[in-house]
Amino acid sequence: MAGENGEAVRNKQVIFRDYVSGFPEDTDMEVRESTMKLRLLEGSNGLLVKNLYLSCDPYMRFRMTKPNVPVYVEPFRPGSLITGYGVARVLESGHPNFKKGDLLWGLTGWEECTLITAPETCFKIEHTDVPLSYYTGLLGMPGMTAYAGFFEVCSPKKGETVFISAASGAVGQLVGQLAKLFGCYVVGSAGSKEKVDLLKNKFGFDDAFNYKEEQDLDAALKRCFPEGIDIYFENVGGKMLDAVLLSMKLHGRIAVCGMISQYNLEQPEGIHNLTNFILKRIRMEGFVVSDYYHLYPKFLETVLPHIKEGKIVYVEDTAEGLENAPTALIGLFYGRNIGKQVVVVSHE
Amino acid sequence: MAGENGEAVRNKQVIFRDYVSGFPEDTDMEVRESTMKLRLLEGSNGLLVKNLYLSCDPYMRFRMTKPNVPVYVEPFRPGSLITGYGVARVLESGHPNFKKGDLLWGLTGWEECTLITAPETCFKIEHTDVPLSYYTGLLGMPGMTAYAGFFEVCSPKKGETVFISAASGAVGQLVGQLAKLFGCYVVGSAGSKEKVDLLKNKFGFDDAFNYKEEQDLDAALKRCFPEGIDIYFENVGGKMLDAVLLSMKLHGRIAVCGMISQYNLEQPEGIHNLTNFILKRIRMEGFVVSDYYHLYPKFLETVLPHIKEGKIVYVEDTAEGLENAPTALIGLFYGRNIGKQVVVVSHE
Repeated sequence: MAGENGEAVRNKQVIFRDYVSGFPEDTDMEVRESTMKLRLLEGSNGLLVKNLYLSCDPYMRFRMTKPNVPVYVEPFRPGSLITGYGVARVLESGHPNFKKGDLLWGLTGWEECTLITAPETCFKIEHTDVPLSYYTGLLGMPGMTAYAGFFEVCSPKKGETVFISAASGAVGQLVGQLAKLFGCYVVGSAGSKEKVDLLKNKFGFDDAFNYKEEQDLDAALKRCFPEGIDIYFENVGGKMLDAVLLSMKLHGRIAVCGMISQYNLEQPEGIHNLTNFILKRIRMEGFVVSDYYHLYPKFLETVLPHIKEGKIVYVEDTAEGLENAPTALIGLFYGRNIGKQVVVVSHE
Repeated sequence: MAGENGEAVRNKQVIFRDYVSGFPEDTDMEVRESTMKLRLLEGSNGLLVKNLYLSCDPYMRFRMTKPNVPVYVEPFRPGSLITGYGVARVLESGHPNFKKGDLLWGLTGWEECTLITAPETCFKIEHTDVPLSYYTGLLGMPGMTAYAGFFEVCSPKKGETVFISAASGAVGQLVGQLAKLFGCYVVGSAGSKEKVDLLKNKFGFDDAFNYKEEQDLDAALKRCFPEGIDIYFENVGGKMLDAVLLSMKLHGRIAVCGMISQYNLEQPEGIHNLTNFILKRIRMEGFVVSDYYHLYPKFLETVLPHIKEGKIVYVEDTAEGLENAPTALIGLFYGRNIGKQVVVVSHE
């Protein structure tokens, strides 16, 4: 990369073409050559960064939908850059929290270099003795989501039974390992034999099943939880949620992290078993990680030692290069990723 | 009534015939003449009571369904007495908390006289300067349900917007009045013009609508809540819940007290808008009043002065005589009752 003195340099970008209804496709995005000046304007408190790793996250589907009023997630703008979480290195800083050479994670652009205009929303990376890409997953937004969702929303008690859907994904794999370390009985569902094997053999879940091979989700859950489910960490919605409601225990809790099975449907599936809320005094709560970022230091303190001792492991699925970013993102909605989906823009 | 010396006396009873699927009918119950001895067995710690008022409550529909495993509500037994909440006078007491002549409310039988075997679950009535029948409604289980559901489950804040379905019912009318006194903006729905008039003109709701006359529940809610709903007190379920989810505000709360529109359907309606849980961080919680009875003294302390000052009013729908009890109970599921449905067994 040239441009050290502020001349315009090449900056490959992933552009959002237009609003999507139904399943998004690779062609809803395009990779374009662009240029940018690698210099901050005088008096700017922004950051010029070089993007290293980008995060593909299911919530990004919300941003592809033509906004209704009121809007709770800022939509992408047709013809404009895709933005999302990523790991980056600071090239030039106008903000007192960061200096040239620092590593950070936070909201950035799907491009080679980005001008970050809200550096206060970024987290400086202090621990570099783990893979940097972990800050798109295990140690970034999805990891923090798992931690806040499990400990703050689910109110777990030792010995309780925990069910996690999309359990081998970026969030699920950590929820399961945190729940095991906390002393819960943990079962996960996923969509392939390979993923189920990961859950049982790599992440140490007590049990797991492939939802695509179960004729009857209710029966599968009753088999795994003969006494019922105390906590459901919801990532998928739809038929799985409906079946889970039948197996919830008295005073069960459901943390709604995502409902990925529903995001691309013109009409979401109907959930029929909600009267169980009354009979079983169920609490269900949707949450968004940004409400919990004040817990990030505590989260790191909890998780980093476990990573270093090998008690928490993490599986990533890596796409190389911005050219492959659209396909990687779309793959989430077909369950093609095995573990956290990362896009490598540059290894250093 | 004879029988003061323990001889067998007439005891009319309402008997549950057999398990029901779909809508229950009057003929699922029958009124029978029976006899009982009006004397406690030696050493009994039970109570012999004369029933005065009986309470018709929607939850009783759960007890008419053939039980699945696990059972969270004890079903009625085919061929046996209907039981439920009521107000009664003690004829003979084997329990230190009660003496002959005391008034109480609690679980009793749908019959003239009942042997209560668990007197510790009954509440002694200390305040008789209000209509005694209020202890089946405003000052009994439904009133306590309104109080606990609103203050303990909904976590209200002054100035918030509150929507209540089945708002003129036994629970709804008190929720609305408590919410108004607390400083909320309150809207209710009900199923007739007469009920809507009650909401607006007697209970002091800010607004109300007849859901049967609205083409589009979503539009009705948007009209009443242009800025959205902070709290939904859920009594009906089904299409109303689905519409409410579209109007909930960020961090909105839903207390699920009942879903009466769903109890008699072979297959409950599907709810489609659950992804709003994520976008709006909604919390929904089912609750059962029995978890909150420890708050009953505080509840009375709060509500009694308001009743005496006329700041809380209550509407009852009264059926005279055990013969009319089955029709009164069934009427709940057609919305025939206007206000709390009470059955008078005896006025004294």
